[in-house]
Amino acid sequence: MKIVIIGAVAGGASAAARARRLDEDAEIVLIERGREPSFANCGLPYYVGGEIESRDKLLVAPADRLRQRYRLDVRTRQEVTSIDRVKQTVDVRNLETGETYTESYDRLVVSTGASPFRPPIPGIEGPHVLELRDLADADRMFDRVATGGSRRAVIVGAGFIGIEVAENLVRRGLDVTVVELADQILPPWDPEMVRSLEDHVRQQGVTLKLNDSAAAFEEATSDDANLVVKLASGEALPAGFAVVCIGVRPESGLAAESGIETGPRGGIVTNDHMQTNDPNVYAVGDVAQVKDFITGEPTQIPLAGPANRQGRIAADHIFGRDSVYRGTQGTAIVGVFGKTAAMTGHSEKLLQRANLPYEKIYIHPSDHAGYYPGASSMTLKLLFNPDNARIWGAQAIGTTGVDKRIDVIAMAIHARMTVYDLEEVELCYAPQYGSAKDPVNMAGFVAAGVLRGDQPVTHCHFVPPTDQPRDWFVLDVRSPGEFASGHIHDAVNIPLEELRDRMSELPTDRRIVVYCFVGQRGYMATRILNQNGFDVCNLCGGFKSWQQQYLLETQS
Amino acid sequence: MKIVIIGAVAGGASAAARARRLDEDAEIVLIERGREPSFANCGLPYYVGGEIESRDKLLVAPADRLRQRYRLDVRTRQEVTSIDRVKQTVDVRNLETGETYTESYDRLVVSTGASPFRPPIPGIEGPHVLELRDLADADRMFDRVATGGSRRAVIVGAGFIGIEVAENLVRRGLDVTVVELADQILPPWDPEMVRSLEDHVRQQGVTLKLNDSAAAFEEATSDDANLVVKLASGEALPAGFAVVCIGVRPESGLAAESGIETGPRGGIVTNDHMQTNDPNVYAVGDVAQVKDFITGEPTQIPLAGPANRQGRIAADHIFGRDSVYRGTQGTAIVGVFGKTAAMTGHSEKLLQRANLPYEKIYIHPSDHAGYYPGASSMTLKLLFNPDNARIWGAQAIGTTGVDKRIDVIAMAIHARMTVYDLEEVELCYAPQYGSAKDPVNMAGFVAAGVLRGDQPVTHCHFVPPTDQPRDWFVLDVRSPGEFASGHIHDAVNIPLEELRDRMSELPTDRRIVVYCFVGQRGYMATRILNQNGFDVCNLCGGFKSWQQQYLLETQS
Ligand SMILES: Cc1cc2nc3c(=O)[nH]c(=O)nc-3n(C[C@H](O)[C@H](O)[C@H](O)COP(=O)(O)OP(=O)(O)OC[C@H]3O[C@@H](n4cnc5c(N)ncnc54)[C@H](O)[C@@H]3O)c2cc1C
Ligand SMILES: Cc1cc2nc3c(=O)[nH]c(=O)nc-3n(C[C@H](O)[C@H](O)[C@H](O)COP(=O)(O)OP(=O)(O)OC[C@H]3O[C@@H](n4cnc5c(N)ncnc54)[C@H](O)[C@@H]3O)c2cc1C
Ligand SMILES: CC(C)(COP(=O)(O)OP(=O)(O)OC[C@H]1O[C@@H](n2cnc3c(N)ncnc32)[C@H](O)[C@@H]1OP(=O)(O)O)[C@@H](O)C(=O)NCCC(=O)NCCS
Ligand SMILES: CC(C)(COP(=O)(O)OP(=O)(O)OC[C@H]1O[C@@H](n2cnc3c(N)ncnc32)[C@H](O)[C@@H]1OP(=O)(O)O)[C@@H](O)C(=O)NCCC(=O)NCCS
Repeated sequence: MKIVIIGAVAGGASAAARARRLDEDAEIVLIERGREPSFANCGLPYYVGGEIESRDKLLVAPADRLRQRYRLDVRTRQEVTSIDRVKQTVDVRNLETGETYTESYDRLVVSTGASPFRPPIPGIEGPHVLELRDLADADRMFDRVATGGSRRAVIVGAGFIGIEVAENLVRRGLDVTVVELADQILPPWDPEMVRSLEDHVRQQGVTLKLNDSAAAFEEATSDDANLVVKLASGEALPAGFAVVCIGVRPESGLAAESGIETGPRGGIVTNDHMQTNDPNVYAVGDVAQVKDFITGEPTQIPLAGPANRQGRIAADHIFGRDSVYRGTQGTAIVGVFGKTAAMTGHSEKLLQRANLPYEKIYIHPSDHAGYYPGASSMTLKLLFNPDNARIWGAQAIGTTGVDKRIDVIAMAIHARMTVYDLEEVELCYAPQYGSAKDPVNMAGFVAAGVLRGDQPVTHCHFVPPTDQPRDWFVLDVRSPGEFASGHIHDAVNIPLEELRDRMSELPTDRRIVVYCFVGQRGYMATRILNQNGFDVCNLCGGFKSWQQQYLLETQS
Repeated sequence: MKIVIIGAVAGGASAAARARRLDEDAEIVLIERGREPSFANCGLPYYVGGEIESRDKLLVAPADRLRQRYRLDVRTRQEVTSIDRVKQTVDVRNLETGETYTESYDRLVVSTGASPFRPPIPGIEGPHVLELRDLADADRMFDRVATGGSRRAVIVGAGFIGIEVAENLVRRGLDVTVVELADQILPPWDPEMVRSLEDHVRQQGVTLKLNDSAAAFEEATSDDANLVVKLASGEALPAGFAVVCIGVRPESGLAAESGIETGPRGGIVTNDHMQTNDPNVYAVGDVAQVKDFITGEPTQIPLAGPANRQGRIAADHIFGRDSVYRGTQGTAIVGVFGKTAAMTGHSEKLLQRANLPYEKIYIHPSDHAGYYPGASSMTLKLLFNPDNARIWGAQAIGTTGVDKRIDVIAMAIHARMTVYDLEEVELCYAPQYGSAKDPVNMAGFVAAGVLRGDQPVTHCHFVPPTDQPRDWFVLDVRSPGEFASGHIHDAVNIPLEELRDRMSELPTDRRIVVYCFVGQRGYMATRILNQNGFDVCNLCGGFKSWQQQYLLETQS
């Protein structure tokens, strides 16, 4: 068996390593355009920022190790220029010598990844407009940062790579502006979830320009700037350099030219075993179109975990194993200046776009027991299908313990569980680590309560900040002190403790929207009023969610 | 509906709170012997140690709040002295006034918890032999520690409470000895998993006496000691005070006297709805015998999560809901001087005792990508059923990220998943948080490899440190440098990188046990040799597991 693999990083190197373990005798040729195979793409921003001090650390498996341990035929600085599926060969160009040659294969694995998207903006090909995909890019940015010159950088795109680059340039002392076309950072998350992070990013000194975009990159020659980034809004931002991080596109051209089928977003169409329309050709990683774990629909989510897993599955299948890729769940995480955003499954936007039925809840639990020092609160959003209670997805923002809860819910989604299962699962509890009712359980309780009708809820967009009279009565059941320090402007305050005695003050002809700080007292109040015949619902997530949504620190 | 609840902490208070939410009109009487309801038992050791500074923090829901928010009839310092199931009444004694009265119920919830076990050791009732269950106990210990006197303490029992007390007394500057009858600390974990923690505990200055027990507590009157703890081994330990933490016993006497059925270990027998043999009487929390989530067998695992959940389910069932307690999984966690031990499901000991078929694997992954600063390694043991690949349990020891992996596996067990599911689940990955192949995936890979026969493994007890000739050949595939700094004494060193060229040096008439540092290169070597016709297996967990098992730092 002779396997040729194009691209020697996450998907390709994983396929090669697994193939070797499965067959000592296979001939495995790993062709990589870059200088180094098997490097840590995900570490690049932190190397630029100095958090990862040594460049060598990024070389996860250097070429020599791949050769010696795995007996792989690793060929770096060589580029596959065409695929002949009939002859089962690829043409290769040695980028050092310019020589070209043809290599035959029994099975071909295309793991060419995805390249940063570069829209045709005037000036984008200029020398001061960088991107960050590989070690060469990182070296380039590292040098820019190290060698002085203008201390201003403009990052175009506030996806996770843009935000990581922003953080690391700030770490290096640069003055950073991030420009983003959408009305939010981190587009895979829902907007209301990242509002507090946007605040946080700004507090770190980053200038954030949402709803705006780069219209042109013009060279400049002032002491202070090598270029000026012109925005669609008309603004002009002088800078030492710009970094374009507006997403990636599958590098599927090579495959497509040889007649391998690609999907509408450019990914190579694959089946459950990562085979393309040519059964001798596999595609894995960022270049592949796969199926969504939850809906089975085609999707492209360029992340390292899926790339590694797909590479392993392709190798399995080449050697006759029945391994199946179950689909990509959309589990993702990003550190944002000491805070964490994590998610798994579908976002609300995605559900809306796909016109799928959903309900959602928000809670703001502590990462561990409040009575133990150092507890910090997170915001957790759970999306689920009201028809069958299945979990669609979850998102969380906070400081610690966020990754844990999203991973647990990722496992629940993988098991196709419901919100009722979240109620019952037994998780670790000691005061430093969690709560007797873990945030995951709590999310289950609240969601199950909504589905069972115990807790009719409403969401923040039903009570926007407005001076207009509302159709409903807004009831704040927090303490007078909390109320005084900020509330929804036309709310009436009756503390939960007094509610049973003061129900006569409430209207019986209108719906009552009740809220507290995080939703829990609001829930209690909802139960009380509901059982006393009022038309009532709880503002899910309480004043805290409302503040996050409308970004108002206080309103009195 | 009138509900009487005996015991107002984890199980009882949760039942009461849920009952109120379900029914505004119910009469709910919460009877508690102690001064305070609803306190944080789990915080007591940390209050004694000063980590939790304010005693008030331990009062999770003070009586007033339970009265005002939940409209509960909370009666503290009152003790239920008998139950009349025919009349549906309980007799109550007011511990302040000595008065007694009778209270009727429609439904009774017994949530009396479990009390520290005090075997009949001479002197155990003396004034210097403490225990730690409630606030009064904590106050007593706090005063002892604060008011000077002898700075020596002896803790009898190295379960999780004993270890937490040890840590917190050390935090207060005491000289601490822990005596444990078993040959290990933290008996729910398997012994080889906690060896490194025993080392760690000793390094904190704690004297650990395993395989020993307290035979007598004798009063002493030296300046330095109020008592002498005589051990079975004959040793005598002078101390200011001793703390007995050798497990708990369900406080089921009251219920048993009224004819409520209890099991062999004293727990009140319950059905899936937490009902006892009297359908009007429920039992929840530490006092109850429940079923094991995995096997369905009766079990008693006194932890707060299950107690809270059971209280909620009992309340549900009282109000006609069909909620079912699915059983206790055995998820537990404890902090040990900055390290963490966590587990879920069944231990190896338990599986052996129950004569259940199992296989196991060990890995030593990093909590996050090795190339990102601050990565620390953990040891993860996974137990599974070789017949159907179902996960039996998992244990992990490490510094960070341990709780996360055990929680994810707890969810997998809850979903009755297999090791093949661990291979595929998609977890959060960015370099600060995990790896593209998360430790949970990695555990799945290795376990699945064992089940598929790709990776025949053996375990440390097959290669004990011995000078006797062995039946098998021991092969060390690490680098010469690693080999030189310590190895299994009769091992032969051929680095993985040279193995393919030096196979002629290996015996063909004997089984080869191959090992590396953590098991991964050993696996590669196993694959190579296996495919070349050798009878080979990998020492699972490698030299690191071997060191942990035999507690030898190096051997050259
Ligand atoms: C800055 C950055 C940060 C990231 N952070 C994270 C993170 O925190 N978490 C996460 O999950 N993911 C992260 N990712 C994404 C992750 O790195 C990718 O999803 C993953 O590397 C995809 O693997 P792949 O094998 O498909 O492609 P790649 O890793 O991109 O490898 C493809 C390789 O193929 C080579 N190649 C392409 N065409 C040819 C050709 N014709 N001939 C020869 N060689 C060719 C390329 O040179 C490239 O090295 C990050 C990516 C970047 C760029
Ligand atoms: C020091 C310590 C640390 C712990 N740490 C952890 C941890 O980190 N994680 C974890 O999960 N669990 C921990 N636990 C265990 C956890 O606290 C218990 O599992 C949980 O509290 C059990 O709840 P329960 O309602 O069954 O019993 P309890 O919480 O013990 O409550 C029972 C109550 O009933 C009262 N009572 C008993 N008999 C009567 C009567 N006849 N009349 C009136 N009242 C009566 C008692 O006074 C008591 O307050 C810890 C326990 C202790 C003691
Ligand atoms: C380095 C690289 C070549 C390794 O590939 P790999 O050998 O398949 O992967 P790992 O090193 O993670 O090892 C996993 C294998 O070791 C085995 N293993 C791991 N720990 C083990 C242990 N303690 N005992 C026995 N086996 C072990 C696993 O079972 C698995 O083998 P399998 O797939 O045959 O079941 C590839 O992952 C790579 O290039 N990574 C860097 C690029 C990248 O991922 N970039 C994006 C993220 S920054
Ligand atoms: C304090 C105590 C009385 C609270 O009982 P409780 O009200 O049932 O529990 P919690 O405060 O955790 O709240 C959970 C309830 O609030 C709801 N809730 C929580 N957050 C919410 C939010 N943001 N929005 C809406 N509802 C929310 C949950 O759905 C749940 O209600 P449900 O059971 O009706 O579904 C009880 O847990 C207790 O005594 N604890 C201390 C003792 C103890 O546990 N000791 C051992 C551990 S140290």
